[in-house]
Parts: sequence; structure tokens; C-alpha cells
Amino acid sequence: MGMVGYAFMGAAHSQAWRTAPRFFDLPLAPVMASVAGRDPERVSAAAEKLGWHSAETEWRRLIERDDIDLIDICTPGDTHEEIAVAALEAGKHVLCEKPLANSVAEAERMAAAADAAVSRGVFAMCGFSYRRTPALSLAKRLVDSGALGQLRHVRAQYLQDWLTDENAPLTWRLDKSKSGSGSLGDIGAHIIDAAQWISGQSITGVSALLETFVKERPLGGDFVGLGGAGAAGGPKGPVTVDDAAIFSARLDGGAVGVFEATRFALGRKNAMRLELNGSKASLAFDFEDMNSLWFYGAADEPNAGFRKIQVTEPEHPYTAHWWPVGHGLGYEHAFTHQVVDLVEAIAAGKQPTPSFTDALQVQRVLEAVETSAADESRWTKV
Amino acid sequence: MGMVGYAFMGAAHSQAWRTAPRFFDLPLAPVMASVAGRDPERVSAAAEKLGWHSAETEWRRLIERDDIDLIDICTPGDTHEEIAVAALEAGKHVLCEKPLANSVAEAERMAAAADAAVSRGVFAMCGFSYRRTPALSLAKRLVDSGALGQLRHVRAQYLQDWLTDENAPLTWRLDKSKSGSGSLGDIGAHIIDAAQWISGQSITGVSALLETFVKERPLGGDFVGLGGAGAAGGPKGPVTVDDAAIFSARLDGGAVGVFEATRFALGRKNAMRLELNGSKASLAFDFEDMNSLWFYGAADEPNAGFRKIQVTEPEHPYTAHWWPVGHGLGYEHAFTHQVVDLVEAIAAGKQPTPSFTDALQVQRVLEAVETSAADESRWTKV
Amino acid sequence: MGMVGYAFMGAAHSQAWRTAPRFFDLPLAPVMASVAGRDPERVSAAAEKLGWHSAETEWRRLIERDDIDLIDICTPGDTHEEIAVAALEAGKHVLCEKPLANSVAEAERMAAAADAAVSRGVFAMCGFSYRRTPALSLAKRLVDSGALGQLRHVRAQYLQDWLTDENAPLTWRLDKSKSGSGSLGDIGAHIIDAAQWISGQSITGVSALLETFVKERPLGGDFVGLGGAGAAGGPKGPVTVDDAAIFSARLDGGAVGVFEATRFALGRKNAMRLELNGSKASLAFDFEDMNSLWFYGAADEPNAGFRKIQVTEPEHPYTAHWWPVGHGLGYEHAFTHQVVDLVEAIAAGKQPTPSFTDALQVQRVLEAVETSAADESRWTKV
Amino acid sequence: MGMVGYAFMGAAHSQAWRTAPRFFDLPLAPVMASVAGRDPERVSAAAEKLGWHSAETEWRRLIERDDIDLIDICTPGDTHEEIAVAALEAGKHVLCEKPLANSVAEAERMAAAADAAVSRGVFAMCGFSYRRTPALSLAKRLVDSGALGQLRHVRAQYLQDWLTDENAPLTWRLDKSKSGSGSLGDIGAHIIDAAQWISGQSITGVSALLETFVKERPLGGDFVGLGGAGAAGGPKGPVTVDDAAIFSARLDGGAVGVFEATRFALGRKNAMRLELNGSKASLAFDFEDMNSLWFYGAADEPNAGFRKIQVTEPEHPYTAHWWPVGHGLGYEHAFTHQVVDLVEAIAAGKQPTPSFTDALQVQRVLEAVETSAADESRWTKV
Repeated sequence: MGMVGYAFMGAAHSQAWRTAPRFFDLPLAPVMASVAGRDPERVSAAAEKLGWHSAETEWRRLIERDDIDLIDICTPGDTHEEIAVAALEAGKHVLCEKPLANSVAEAERMAAAADAAVSRGVFAMCGFSYRRTPALSLAKRLVDSGALGQLRHVRAQYLQDWLTDENAPLTWRLDKSKSGSGSLGDIGAHIIDAAQWISGQSITGVSALLETFVKERPLGGDFVGLGGAGAAGGPKGPVTVDDAAIFSARLDGGAVGVFEATRFALGRKNAMRLELNGSKASLAFDFEDMNSLWFYGAADEPNAGFRKIQVTEPEHPYTAHWWPVGHGLGYEHAFTHQVVDLVEAIAAGKQPTPSFTDALQVQRVLEAVETSAADESRWTKV
Repeated sequence: MGMVGYAFMGAAHSQAWRTAPRFFDLPLAPVMASVAGRDPERVSAAAEKLGWHSAETEWRRLIERDDIDLIDICTPGDTHEEIAVAALEAGKHVLCEKPLANSVAEAERMAAAADAAVSRGVFAMCGFSYRRTPALSLAKRLVDSGALGQLRHVRAQYLQDWLTDENAPLTWRLDKSKSGSGSLGDIGAHIIDAAQWISGQSITGVSALLETFVKERPLGGDFVGLGGAGAAGGPKGPVTVDDAAIFSARLDGGAVGVFEATRFALGRKNAMRLELNGSKASLAFDFEDMNSLWFYGAADEPNAGFRKIQVTEPEHPYTAHWWPVGHGLGYEHAFTHQVVDLVEAIAAGKQPTPSFTDALQVQRVLEAVETSAADESRWTKV
Repeated sequence: MGMVGYAFMGAAHSQAWRTAPRFFDLPLAPVMASVAGRDPERVSAAAEKLGWHSAETEWRRLIERDDIDLIDICTPGDTHEEIAVAALEAGKHVLCEKPLANSVAEAERMAAAADAAVSRGVFAMCGFSYRRTPALSLAKRLVDSGALGQLRHVRAQYLQDWLTDENAPLTWRLDKSKSGSGSLGDIGAHIIDAAQWISGQSITGVSALLETFVKERPLGGDFVGLGGAGAAGGPKGPVTVDDAAIFSARLDGGAVGVFEATRFALGRKNAMRLELNGSKASLAFDFEDMNSLWFYGAADEPNAGFRKIQVTEPEHPYTAHWWPVGHGLGYEHAFTHQVVDLVEAIAAGKQPTPSFTDALQVQRVLEAVETSAADESRWTKV
Repeated sequence: MGMVGYAFMGAAHSQAWRTAPRFFDLPLAPVMASVAGRDPERVSAAAEKLGWHSAETEWRRLIERDDIDLIDICTPGDTHEEIAVAALEAGKHVLCEKPLANSVAEAERMAAAADAAVSRGVFAMCGFSYRRTPALSLAKRLVDSGALGQLRHVRAQYLQDWLTDENAPLTWRLDKSKSGSGSLGDIGAHIIDAAQWISGQSITGVSALLETFVKERPLGGDFVGLGGAGAAGGPKGPVTVDDAAIFSARLDGGAVGVFEATRFALGRKNAMRLELNGSKASLAFDFEDMNSLWFYGAADEPNAGFRKIQVTEPEHPYTAHWWPVGHGLGYEHAFTHQVVDLVEAIAAGKQPTPSFTDALQVQRVLEAVETSAADESRWTKV
């Protein structure tokens, strides 16, 4: 197994690969063979720090190696297509970070490559890791059981605040050529995927508004992390992506949705929120309290109320493998669950989810949002 | 003073008139002279129950009476214009429930009548009572003080669930000819007014989506209350208003907004919520916890966090007149504060707020929402 | 009906008497005949402000008047016995603020007088008003229904912070001769009563600790309110009551309890909290969010969680008489419910609750707490 | 490095040893040499699963091995003294799970052995891991900075519910000969340590009550986990420890405390809670929301309120080594921080905290609690 990229996402994926076999019984034993990056010194240091046996300065070397069966792509979105397609064509399984690509066209070629690979027993998965947060997995299970009845509302927000300061630096995440979009693709993609997956409904159309509050920012942002301090008095460059994305939506099962992604919601650090209102029950989640799922059941009336379910019971998804009830998990555990599910699917010869086709659907929604926003918010079919 | 209508809103207004002089020192002593309603028996019973000295079966009688200086209008929206204009022209002050009217045209005529009355020392006020909830008044005070810096986001929701049941009856609130609109005018109007008032910015354009989930409902809904049980097996009539309204907005100070009003958010009973994110601070409010205002100040970083301010301190708006700190107020107290402010304005010969012109601006937003929703959600200027 | 005292409690009781007939159908029509106080000017002003038809400067005058059937006692605890006994012996019903008295001996004489009065159709009630907060009434109803199973834990706190400042003035509440005790009788009495009433169990023994953090304070505290500003540099007097009271307890049904009352919990404004843990369900309440009751039912497992019940449904105690669901009530509504229940009991010729005997039991617990605290916290039977 | 025991705590410690070098720059590289346990098959399986290079069936073998410099003790309390003293005398550093021992006498001998070892550059640490939860570390930092002023109240609870069911099996944790005590030593010890450490004050005396609600339980409880299902109809054995422990306390800086530990608080899964009220600020924590610390500062008044600080900022303890702000940590991260601090202390030749002497002080409090409970709750000096 090899990984491309070793920044924030690379660290999270490495922790997942190291940890999964310690808490789960995997049908295959992942070997952390090699990590690839352009800078020889930095990639070597990363390999040692993150637990990879070797380092490569060229991602194509990972694909050429016979001891590597799976490529884990943790680079910015502009490189996903090239790496993923090459890997799949070379017969390597692929785990690719989200968003799948920076355009629908790229995503379509990736999904096509993934489809073609299936016949050769080679599988691709997109890393919408939040699906594996136990509380969101439980939400999916409850919806699938029919507990919500007819779904009426989807309410999704992803609120962060790390760009509130006008002097936060111009990182690659603010450069459209690298990241494809801003809050929309970075965090909006997560709530689009989660909303569709959990509801079991697809978004069929949107009306959208995009906004860039701060048009230019100090140069000097680091590749590695999310933020960091730029030089307030130094040269500036243009922000070419959205700071905030707002859209309404209709889903194919009859629900209406409202979505908002922003990095300017001062005080909201990682408020990835989802609420579903059905005719029989409602669900609510906020990642800032990630071990809880709120459930309201009309059957409990008149003494109903949103129940704060601590999703740490042995009956809950994934949690029996960890600690006693009430001993919460953290952000990175979803990545561990992701590789567990991926390895199990590969061993079983089954398509892991979300597939590239699932991720392509998210990409189509992202495109429709941008199209609508550029056309006076006019309703745009997905 | 006379009141027209004696249902839910009439009861709230009566409690306000009775209570205001007990906790506040009013410059004028309101006399609850008469209440008007069509049904002689019911209006007489209401007069006695609610504390009015007499009852009239014709609202015009209130206007004709010399002992009545102020008309308080608590009827459905289709009657507002006629009563208010007649009262103002007769030299009576007017307090009119929201929404001001069922159309912009009506609202314009009402605002014109109010403007004309001012020169005669006669004043009109629209009953957006939530403004006088202490926590929202404090929010306004904080924004006015500049505490928020540059405002980026307004996030407003008004979530109720009393129509979730498909057999909830067809009341006047679901009849467009009486109510003008559904969730939009009934509860959406509140968050539009609150958002504009607190932010100090006006909505300049919207993109909207309206939805009616349940197209027909059992006949037999009572005039008086909000809900009640219809006969599930009996005859049905068409729902002619929206069940849910969603729209994005831009405000004239540069903020973007997202608004949602619905009566289908199962489990949310009266979640009138408002959040503002500025460059220096954020505010959040939820009416389901109405005595609290959440404040996040960037100046508190790195140990910042949303502060749950219990808005019961003597320094807070209105609260010094009530109980010791921590002893919360209820829904109806805002109505008491509303009449206190109205009486003080009249006594001082000053225009009370919100004026009919302020309420007309809300009406224009409501119209823009309906226009946009009918035109593929296209951006519509207010 | 006559009232003695017109400070904080007098204002709350007056609002209740004024409001009860407006929202409830009372079997008798209370007439607010007269209020008594020592200062002629102040009591006259209070009568007018609070809605009493006349004022008396001597409470005995109220008892002598034939047009007065009920005496409402809102004075400090050192006066309760004399007034209540005189009133009962004169054939007047009595509503007496809590704590019933400043000692068990006084309370015993009051309970004896109340018992003697019953045979004459005269009733006495003690004003533990929190019982009539809808959420706590619902808690009682749930316990009575058997929903909790075997009760194991009672956890009660009453946390305030208005004495945190060492320069808060020396009011009558800090003078043992007037108030009997400090946090113990003032707020501890409320949680003792609520815990016993809701659990249906009596406290049989306690082990206690009392503490006075600030031994002397500036003179000059006003009689009227809770706090206010003393003169920091001026003369001081001794604090003769407890600032904080902590005790463990056993209840006669097998539960164990822990109780804490303090006015030094900085940031807690009126945190009257109660939690009960049974073998089948748990309940939790905090007055700072007074319209909610939290319920955990083991039957909901594995998807159980504390449900935040908004106690505003028509099926809930008292709430059908007020506003639509989700439109919360405030502090003073419990006083309105108290007089409703009192008037209904009197009209029906039934003993209202809590009786003086119920309140005497609370007084015995208070005494046992003081005895234990003075005897090395030794276990002390009630 | 070798570890003794491989159940719940062994898994947590192993994860810590594996993970610490991946996120932190350690001055020494821990080698997970060997794990010891009595059952040859189970310990071998555990070694492989948990990442230890070898397994031993006799803990003394770990001490004999020259390649092992540190012994990590994860066994029940009755074995701590023997292992720890032997290890220290053999010149091995020791990390010992809490509570340090099952009696003060044992703990004294352990502390003496640790003191003697220091002169040889050998160090011992007790595993009160909650200290390293970032929110509690931040609490300590705030108290040390003087932010709280004069401390008045400590309020500590550790509420679990896994024994609520009367048929939960009789595990070693319910056997006094193995565990020393029940809720008191298992979870009460954590809040005693946290309260003393964060406040910087030592408990000087207590008054206590212990209760065992369920006197006997089905045999068959597994050694490994916390709970599991016993056979309801099968043979039973006596519960010889407390189910719940309640005590009041005085601290040497003038604060009063109230402590409660129970496994019968139905619905509370791992509610390890701590609140401190000072004259200038208050702090509150609940492990069920472990990434937050609530802070109330009087300096913020009149717009003060408990701030929900998300303890994920780079300036906060430990968190800069993990994920971006708002991406919370889980239960096991405190164990990673514990080994980081231990390794750094050893490398620096400094005593790590908590020392065995610190843990002995906790043990003395536990003993005083038991003494008081057995003596009519009489005040007992520590």
C-alpha cells in the first residue's frame, strides 16, 4: 500500500492504517509500504514520522511497485484524476480524498476508470470520511429502518471560522486552480454527500449564491496545514474561490433542503451539522459534539423531546471495537473505520462505498451550485 | 383604548395591557375600554375574561367612540388595512399585528395613512413583538455598539412542527385569502424583521423556494387557536399557502443571509433562531431558550467560546422591572414591553418602532420571496 | 383577600392573583382587597402599583376585616408564625411563603393551628411555588406513574451567585434573627421540598456541612430586593447565616441524596436543579432552562438518550391554559398556578398542598442539617 | 518497555505507546518490548494485537530483562504494590494505573519505594490519565494563572450507569479483595485527583456516605471488560464494594467540596464532571463533552455567561500536535499525552506527575471516606 501526500490528510490516513488492525480484525493485513511526495527530505521525514517503510519522490513509482496493491491519494484536488486513473489502470485499488476532482469532467473520467477496473477486481473509494463517524452511521441506519417516515426537510451546515481574519494567508485552498472551489468543495462537499447518503435521496436541483468576502490575502500560506499566519503588511494575492456557499435544493424523494458552507462563521470551529425532519421522526447532528446524535420520535409524544443519544453503545456502528460506553471517539476514528470498510470490501470482492460514481454525483451538485450562482441563482438541475 | 379580535393574539395583547402598568411606570394610564368581535356572546365573554370594560360587535364602533384613543388590531391579515386606515384617519393611534398586510399594495396604503397621521400627532406601530424579547433587544444593542465588526453572515430560522401531521385541520392560517401566505408571512416575517432590525441592514434581494407538502387537509379547524384536531375521515379542503419557505438574501451592508421558515420541522416547537457572524464577534439566539443570548467575541481568543448570557441582569433591556437574575421571563413579556414602548412613544410624541414603513419593508421582502419562488428561484430585488 | 408584605414575593403573589382568573376558570373570584405593610406611604404606593384596593399599616387589620377570607403572607420568616396562627384562628385561609418558619418549634405550632383549622373548613398552604413549574409538575406525574422504577439517586442543587462579591450588602437575608438561616432556608428549602415531593420519599437522615465564606459585609442593604450595592468602604456588620449548605441524605424508599445550596456559585444565576435516577428511567431539571424536563428511559435503549421535553404541550400540567407549544412560560407563572390550585382546593373543601405539615417536614430537615453541621457532620435523623 | 495486563487499560496504554511518537517529538524512542499475562495463549494473542514484540506469562520476567527500562502496570489494584516495588527496586521506571493501591499501607510502601528510586534516577508515575485531557489541562492552567481568584466551591461528580441492571454480572470490579473498593476507588479516585490537582488544594477532611444498592449479582463476569451479560437465573455472589459514594470535603485553601461517584446514574454514561467557583471566575467540565471547557469570568459582566471553549486551539495544551481547530479528540488521547509527559520527564531526569506521593494523597482521601462512612458520616481528617 502506498500513499501520495503527507499533509493534514496524510497524517489522518496514516493514523488510520496504523490503528485499524489494532482494534478491528481485518481480513487482510495492510502493509504501509511507501509514501510519495516531491520534496525528498520532507517526504523521508514524513515516512519515518507517519510509519511508512519507505519514501518516493515520484508518485508514479508507487504504481510501478509490485508490492503495492492500493494507492491512497491525499493530495489537492487538481492531481486526483491523473493519479487515480493511472493507479486503477495499473490494477491498484484506490482510496481518493474528497472532493473527487475539481470538475465534473475529471470526475466522470475517474468514475469511468473505476467502473472499468471493477471487472478486473480492482476497486475505488472516495474518502468522505464523515460517513464513518458513528453518530452519522447510526443516522443512516435509522433512516434506512424507516424510522423517519416521509422526509420533508434536510438542513445542512458546515460552519468554520478560520478565514474570518482578513490577514489569514493565501494557501492552496484559496487558489481555484489547485482546490477547484473554496468552502463549496472543501466542506460543502461533505454535507452534500452526508445529506444524500443518509437521506437515501439525491439532489435534483439547486438555487445558489456564492460569496467571497475577502478578495485578496497575504501571500505565504503554507502547503501543510489549514491556516497559519501570513505577513499582514506583505504582498497580497487574489482569492479565487468562494468564502461562503449557500443553496436550496430539492431531493428526489420529495424533501427540500437548505445548505450552507462557510469559513467565516466566527466562533464555529467545525460545525458540520445535519438535521432531517420526517413525518415520524427527526435527527440532528453537530460535529462539534461528534459523539452524539439527537433523535426526536413522534411516537414519544406528548413526552417527546430530542434525545441526546451518546453513540458509544456496543450496538452502535463501530463503537464496540473501542472503549466502554461514554468514552468518546475523536475526529480521526472515522478514518480508521474508513480503511476497515475498504479493506473488508476489497477482501470480499465487493464495491466499497462511496464509489467514484457516488462521488461524481456530489461533483455534479457542486457544478450545479456554481452554475446557478453564476446565473442569478436560477434553479439548476443536477 | 380598544382591541379588535380576541383569539391567541388578543389574549397576549390583553395580558400586556393589564400587566404593563404593574411593573413599569407608564407616562399614560391605559384604560382597557372595549374589545370588538363579530359574535356577540363570544366577544362579551372575551371582554370579561380578558379584562375589557365593554364589548362591541362592530369594530367601527371602537373608532367612533371618543373615549378610545388607540386601536389594537389582532385580527387576520386580510382585515388590517381597512381597520388601520380607518382608525388612523379618525385620529386613533394604531398597534397592528404582523404581518402588516397580505400584500405590498395594502401595506403601502397603510404606511401612507400612517405617514399622514404623524403630522396630526397620531402614531402607528406594527407588532413585531419578538423585538422586545430581552435577549434580542440585547443583541440589537450589541450590534449597534459595533461589537460585531463587519457583518458577514445572517442565519435565520423559524422552525415549528404543528402541521407535521397530515390530518391537522384546515384553519384560516392555511387559507391564502385570509392569511396572505403560510409559514412565510406567519413566522418568516418575524425572522425577516428581526434580522433586518438587529443587523441594521436591509435585505436587497432574494432567491427563494416555497413548498406545500400537504396539499389538502380536513375541514373544521377552529378560528381561535393554532392547531387542534380535525376529523381525519371527513371532507377536505385545499391548502393554498406555503408549508415551508427557504431563501437566500443579500443585505445592504455586505452580509449574506439564509432564511428558513417551516411548520414541518418535527420536534422544533418554536425555534425562532437567529445567528449573526461578524469580523469581531458573533451572536446566536433560539427562542426555545428565550432568556439566553449566545455571544462569541474574538477578543476572548484563544479561550473564547460562545458565552451563554442569561439575559436577566438589571443592566439588560427591560429585565430590571421584573425578577432577580436568573428568574426567566416567558413568551408574553415581549408584548408587555411592546405596549410600554408604544405608550412611552405616544406620550413623548415620537414615532414608535417598528413603524408601518418598517413593516412595509418586511412586506416587500415577502413579496420578493414569492416572486422569486414563482420564477425559478431567480434573484429578485426587493 | 389580603396580603402582608409587598417586596419581591409580594410582587410575585400580586401578579398571580391578578392573572389567575384571566387564564383559568376559577370556582371563586378572588378580590384583592388589601395589602398590609408598616410604612404608610410605601404600602399605599404598593397597593396602587400591585392592584390592591386598599392598604393597611397593621397586618392585624386584615384579619379583623370581614371582607377578607384569606391571608397571603409574604414577609420574612420570623413573622410567619404570629401572622399565620392569628389568621387561622380568626377563620382565614392562609397562604404562607416558605420556609414555613425559622424553627421547628414555630413550624410545629403553625402546623397544629392549621390542623385545628381544618375542622372549621379553613385551610393553610405553604408557598413552595416551584412545585407548580410545569416541568416539575410533569416530573412528579412521571414518578407517580411508576416510570422511574426503583429510585436510587436524588441529586439536588440550588446554585446562585449574588453574594460572590464580598461587598454585596448585609440585607435581612443575611441576618439569622430575621431569616432563620442563609442559603439553607432560602433556597435549600426549595430543593428539599421538591426532592421529597417529586420522589414521593421523605428524608430520614442527613450529614451536613455549612460554611460562611464572607464573615462580615457592608451595612445598608435594602429590605426590598435580593442584592443591590452596599458602600464598600463603610461600616460592616456580621453575617450570621450560612453562605453555603451541603448535605447527603437517605430517603425512606431507599434512595440516597446529595444536596447543595449556595449563593457563591459564580455564573450560576438561579440553577435550581434536580436529578432523579431510577432503575427504569431518570429525570433532570434546571430552572435556568425552566420550560424543559430531561427524561431518559431505559426502554429506549440502545438508542436512548436524555430527551429534552419542552413542557409546553397541552397535555402537560397547566400549559394548556397559556400559549401554543414552544412558547415558554416564566418565573411568575408558578405563582399563578399556586393560587389556582389554592382557590380550587378551598372551593372544593379540600386540603391544598403543600400543607403546613408538609412544610414542617421540610423544616425538620433544615433543623437536622444544622444539627449535623454543628456536630462534626454526624449522621442526624430527621 | 514492558506492560503487565492487557485488558481495557492495557489496550488504552498500548494505543498510547504506539501513537505518541507519531504526533509528538519524543526525546526517547519507546520500544514496545513485551507484555505479560498469566494465560499463555491470551497474552500471545494480545501481544500481537496490541503491537508488543513478545509476550511473557510471568511479570517478573519483564523486570529481569535488560532490554526493558520501564514497567507499565495495567492490572487490578491488589497486584500494584508487588509489581511496582519490585520494578523500582530493579531500577525500572514505573507507570502504574490508578488507584495506586487498595490501601493506604500499600500506597505508603509504594511511595517510599518511589522516593528511594529517585536517587538512582528511576521514576514512578501514577496513571490519572484524565489530567491530560486537554480541557482539564487548560482548567489547571487557568487556575494556576490566578484567573479564578479565591476558590469557594469544588463540585465533582463521576456518574456512570452500567450497574443499573440488577443482573449485570459480578466482575472483579465488584470484588473488594481485587479492586479495593467500588465506585469510590474506580471512578471517585479520578475526581479526587482532578479536583486536588486543578484547584491546587488538598482535601483536609471529609464526611461520607457509601451505599450498595444491589447486594448480590450473577456470577460469570468476564475479567476483560467493564460489563457484559451475566446469567440472570444462575448462581449469585455477594457484591463487596460500594455502588455509590457521596462525600463533602474541605480543602486547605478554604474551598468546600462535594463529591459523588456512582454507577447507578441511569443515562449518565461517563459523566466525569468538575466545577470550580472562584471569586473572579468559574470553570465547568463534563467528560461526556470532553473537548469543551466552560468558563465564566466576572470581568465579562453584565454580558458574562459560561463560555463553551472548544479546547482545540493550537494554544491549548497538547492540541497543536493533532488536528485543526474543532476536530475533537477522544478518550484515548489522554493516555498518549500521559506517555509523552512521562517520556519527557524521564529523559530530563525529572519527576513526572502525578508521583506516587501524589497518588498516596488520593489514597488517604479514599481511606478517610471509608472511615467516615463507617462512623456515622462523622468528619474525618485526611
